[in-house]
Amino acid sequence: VIFVSDDDVRRHVPFAQVLAAIERAFIALDDGRSTVFDVVRGTGGGGEHFFGIKSGRDGSIPVLGVKAGSYAPGNYARGLPSHTSTTLLIDDVTGHPIAVVEANHLNGLRTSAANALAVRCLAREDASTLGIIGIGGQAVFEALAVAHVRPIRRILAAGSSPARRKAFEEQIRQHLSVDLEFADAETCSREADILVTVTPARAPVVLNAWVKPGTHISAMGADNVGKQELEIDLVRRADCWVDHPEQSIRIGEMQHALRAGVVTLEGLRERTLGRLLRGKAATTRTADGVTVFDSSGLAIQDLAAAHAAVECMRAVSSDARSASA
Amino acid sequence: VIFVSDDDVRRHVPFAQVLAAIERAFIALDDGRSTVFDVVRGTGGGGEHFFGIKSGRDGSIPVLGVKAGSYAPGNYARGLPSHTSTTLLIDDVTGHPIAVVEANHLNGLRTSAANALAVRCLAREDASTLGIIGIGGQAVFEALAVAHVRPIRRILAAGSSPARRKAFEEQIRQHLSVDLEFADAETCSREADILVTVTPARAPVVLNAWVKPGTHISAMGADNVGKQELEIDLVRRADCWVDHPEQSIRIGEMQHALRAGVVTLEGLRERTLGRLLRGKAATTRTADGVTVFDSSGLAIQDLAAAHAAVECMRAVSSDARSASA
Repeated sequence: VIFVSDDDVRRHVPFAQVLAAIERAFIALDDGRSTVFDVVRGTGGGGEHFFGIKSGRDGSIPVLGVKAGSYAPGNYARGLPSHTSTTLLIDDVTGHPIAVVEANHLNGLRTSAANALAVRCLAREDASTLGIIGIGGQAVFEALAVAHVRPIRRILAAGSSPARRKAFEEQIRQHLSVDLEFADAETCSREADILVTVTPARAPVVLNAWVKPGTHISAMGADNVGKQELEIDLVRRADCWVDHPEQSIRIGEMQHALRAGVVTLEGLRERTLGRLLRGKAATTRTADGVTVFDSSGLAIQDLAAAHAAVECMRAVSSDARSASA
Repeated sequence: VIFVSDDDVRRHVPFAQVLAAIERAFIALDDGRSTVFDVVRGTGGGGEHFFGIKSGRDGSIPVLGVKAGSYAPGNYARGLPSHTSTTLLIDDVTGHPIAVVEANHLNGLRTSAANALAVRCLAREDASTLGIIGIGGQAVFEALAVAHVRPIRRILAAGSSPARRKAFEEQIRQHLSVDLEFADAETCSREADILVTVTPARAPVVLNAWVKPGTHISAMGADNVGKQELEIDLVRRADCWVDHPEQSIRIGEMQHALRAGVVTLEGLRERTLGRLLRGKAATTRTADGVTVFDSSGLAIQDLAAAHAAVECMRAVSSDARSASA
């Protein structure tokens, strides 16, 4: 059993390699080779620790596996990261374990890779102003992912914690040459060509009236029952796409849209990222329309990213062997 | 992250230690400290590989975790074990991974530990003849577990494969001083004081008419939709107990009894192994009655067993440090 640490991932796993693996995974999901099993949710630590299990089969490799993910907000006070993920890869045929991958950094890469793919398919080619609402640990990943696929020159970010502003700014400055400003959610929304929401919100943080024609929105936050980032009128106005129809209406942004009668499960089955990537569908957004991508986060992203990490580590150890030969 | 291999478990994890951990886990389940999350089922390898995920929180430690289990029957032809399990333990408070445990041998111990606990609570003190139906890899674990808690002098085993008979006999001879005979399912059932079914059957392998008064039956096989080992009339006649009511009526033997109107979910909530172990309930079997324990296999058994294995390995490495000091 191969073990890949978080530090291994940070050093040796480039975003581009994860992006390519995630693209193959979404294509295999759409053509029926991949499967996403039901998400399991539970709690630990006296109800203060939210635990989730995502499992599935990535037919593009193929590999089976499971990611155990934790969100323990009390970790901030302990000086520890609040999100922790660990992925176990299982041989598709024999069921034997292949690898255990610490997937904290990797989870940031795999989530933002779906965003990058959606932006590539849905956002205007010349989009240059990125609005980000929410500046927790995932926000930097999202900014770098969008900048990977569009010529971003300006970032407006909304988030009130001074410590998080400082951390976000330091990391953006380290990786990108852009103008960075902090603003409120309304200003971010009004100015953005591409708007990314990455919050744990349970009520809309973006109102329809704020969003200008031609904007693409990636709603990355909603991944559980009750979570919501976008006003229903905005979803109604938008050309909407999802990572996985069934999961999206259960734990994603579309749970609210379905209840409001704005989308149907049948309709969403035609509106997946996999179909966009395969060229089987395209946005019908008019010049003054808006597009939305709802990311609920899929097990196949976890498996594809973990497998990419294992491949990177094999290449590293093979290089090391060649160098010492 | 601690890694415990299957070989570590075989060498350093005694059954008695697993048994004590599993008993604590069932007690914590009954008193509300433990939780079993939903079981996830999927397939890999072109539908020839059955994949399951059991997760939960064992409040007796406390620890969170997940077991990924595979059954790939094609592995026989590959010279590999057909069942493979891997357990990931997660810190209850912080969500950080603690250990990865190869749980092939351990799975045999944890399953048979529940059987031993049920036998201790339900079978007659003087039960000396054990009938076993099914002689796959799990059967030896079950025989040893029953012999751990009752004075077994004779074993009758039903199973037709010559290779499996040979393997079963070799292992029983290695560990126990008993009379061992192979017989058909009817003879095993008629002679047994304690009868253990450990098959992948999807139709009854034990008929009511075969079972003599005073017999205890542990039905270990049914752990998925459609599986069944006992005739409904036998379940109707018996005083029935379960590991987990909700899971038992979904994937255990009680799925059929519920449909036949023989048991209710509300009734089973009073008939759990945890309640027996806490002394909050006892069998109402009369001298000529029959008891049944339906084991569907719980995540908390996986977590308790994996944690016991980690503790054993810590003791081993501490002994090694002392010896070298």
